[in-house]
Amino acid sequence: MYEKKEKKSVETGNGLTSLAELGEFGLIERLTRNVKRYHPETLKGIGDDAAVIDAGNKVILLSTDLLVEGIHFDLTYMPFKHLGYKAAVVNISDIAAMNGVPKQMTVSIAVSSRFSAEALDELYAGVVMACDKYKVDLVGGDTSSNIKGLMISVSIMGEAKKEEVIYRSGARPGDLLCVTGDLGSAYIGLLILEREKSVFQVDPNMQPELSGFDYQIGRQLRPEARTDIRNLLIGTGIRPTSMIDISDGLASEILHICKQSGVGCKLFEEKIPMDEYTRELAKEYKIIPSVAALSGGEDYELLFTVKQEDYDKIKDIAGITIIGHMTATTEGKFMITPDGKAIPLTAQGWDGMKGR
Amino acid sequence: MYEKKEKKSVETGNGLTSLAELGEFGLIERLTRNVKRYHPETLKGIGDDAAVIDAGNKVILLSTDLLVEGIHFDLTYMPFKHLGYKAAVVNISDIAAMNGVPKQMTVSIAVSSRFSAEALDELYAGVVMACDKYKVDLVGGDTSSNIKGLMISVSIMGEAKKEEVIYRSGARPGDLLCVTGDLGSAYIGLLILEREKSVFQVDPNMQPELSGFDYQIGRQLRPEARTDIRNLLIGTGIRPTSMIDISDGLASEILHICKQSGVGCKLFEEKIPMDEYTRELAKEYKIIPSVAALSGGEDYELLFTVKQEDYDKIKDIAGITIIGHMTATTEGKFMITPDGKAIPLTAQGWDGMKGR
Repeated sequence: MYEKKEKKSVETGNGLTSLAELGEFGLIERLTRNVKRYHPETLKGIGDDAAVIDAGNKVILLSTDLLVEGIHFDLTYMPFKHLGYKAAVVNISDIAAMNGVPKQMTVSIAVSSRFSAEALDELYAGVVMACDKYKVDLVGGDTSSNIKGLMISVSIMGEAKKEEVIYRSGARPGDLLCVTGDLGSAYIGLLILEREKSVFQVDPNMQPELSGFDYQIGRQLRPEARTDIRNLLIGTGIRPTSMIDISDGLASEILHICKQSGVGCKLFEEKIPMDEYTRELAKEYKIIPSVAALSGGEDYELLFTVKQEDYDKIKDIAGITIIGHMTATTEGKFMITPDGKAIPLTAQGWDGMKGR
Repeated sequence: MYEKKEKKSVETGNGLTSLAELGEFGLIERLTRNVKRYHPETLKGIGDDAAVIDAGNKVILLSTDLLVEGIHFDLTYMPFKHLGYKAAVVNISDIAAMNGVPKQMTVSIAVSSRFSAEALDELYAGVVMACDKYKVDLVGGDTSSNIKGLMISVSIMGEAKKEEVIYRSGARPGDLLCVTGDLGSAYIGLLILEREKSVFQVDPNMQPELSGFDYQIGRQLRPEARTDIRNLLIGTGIRPTSMIDISDGLASEILHICKQSGVGCKLFEEKIPMDEYTRELAKEYKIIPSVAALSGGEDYELLFTVKQEDYDKIKDIAGITIIGHMTATTEGKFMITPDGKAIPLTAQGWDGMKGR
């Protein structure tokens, strides 16, 4: 879904503004500035993981995501079935991020004539597999020719009780910042796949060396959505104050919560949960391990905040890690390193970390 | 939205099935054959203008449509603002075709770097203009880079009372077949635009000659959705037994109703409502005028059936024309010419009419 972030627009020489320099978030901000709301039942429009629409005794959640060949996936190493599965999962994750239950999905594809029906069979087999796992009804879509490449557009509807919905905007100073699972492996998986692709391009007889990297590659090619967290939290009686899924990287998602909630944060680097082998691989790739988590993205874990008084309830839950806490907005947004340095969090965490 | 139509799959030489020969409807049939339904509130999935989801005291309608550059539109003559307007309208029309009220919309775009932010401003201005006219909330979307060209994916939610929803499947033998407005002009508008484009390509100094064709070009570049029909019918006390919007051409849409309802039909050629000047222009282009209506598409009028007993109520309503009636499925699907010949209706009406 659209996510808003401030960025200045940049004028090009011809008086027109280039999309590259405006950036995705800047573009969305600009394009949607004149949007009005006509229906009171539209409780939340642009600016969260999903729109929220009042339907009487419950709310409907609506989200949509595009996957474009050459931008979001590379068919050199992405099997069609995995691609279909992932296209479904990234949308299901948006519903999980609102604390909703995914229900119905539409899948639209635009394909050039280079694709066979058998390839699309595999793609849809992946979609159907995800629908089966997450109990989502595939209720429609559209198919079209494309001049070049493959594009998948998925829309998803979910539901929740009105009081169950968790927005990005509910975090308050003092709230604990928590994350599910571990981070950074999807990005390391991507680096491994890209490396083996380069090797293959130099010598097509080379077999890719992917054994031993199952976890990292699996996280990249076949992510899962954390729809289980909803029930886990209900079971413990914890109600997060804000929530978002980690599609773009931990830093970017924390900043979304900070902005929407009007708070600052302190993130503790050593608390960021990462697979041990992923940490080692990151070092092999000359990357500070935490940067893979902060800026890698595509982990589809959930990031959320809970009230401090829930500390005892949450601290021992397996698979959930407290990684920091929210502060007053005047205190800024920082990551604290193990040696006590405070580094400003930036969505371009990659650049922001260069100096270290 | 997906629409199903029977077509044999065709094996290519390499043992794979080419998409071109399979056709859109054949492909959808094939890709969605393994789809299951998990939620009883999904009242209707694939196979109508929109999916229908039970939400307690009402139903939610969900539909989606793709517009791909080079396939659905040509930026040589399609201004960005019109494109945005049309992308919204074709989705709104799907909700009108279910007898629902359009409510919320998501708009996703994939764009190559050749586009400026100003071009997309215009595109969104068109979307916002349609949202304003039809009172639809733009609640989200996604933006992405694209390797080549522009792609727009719109999803729309609407609502209706459960008993108000009109499916394609409710027509019965004896029902009257009716259509709103007039047909064929959008297609003639396209031919005019294509002609002027060819002239321009030969001599870029030539000014396109579009004056005098306002109606036809307007129907192509800036169609409207017939959301007004819902209230008109409520006012007269008529409840259609089946309904569909005319996006692919009258013949194709009649066949959808026949197939989903399990009925046949008799369509009377002379009854097909057409703008007089559109008829003349069709002849100039060496096209039998009715063929522009039968196969041209993009008129976004509504095609519906009513019970015979509603004849007196419907016969004098301005802007609605009775064009035929439904028959037993064993009687076939025919168009009756003014001289009494019965021509089988085919979705490829164009080919089917060649012999005349």
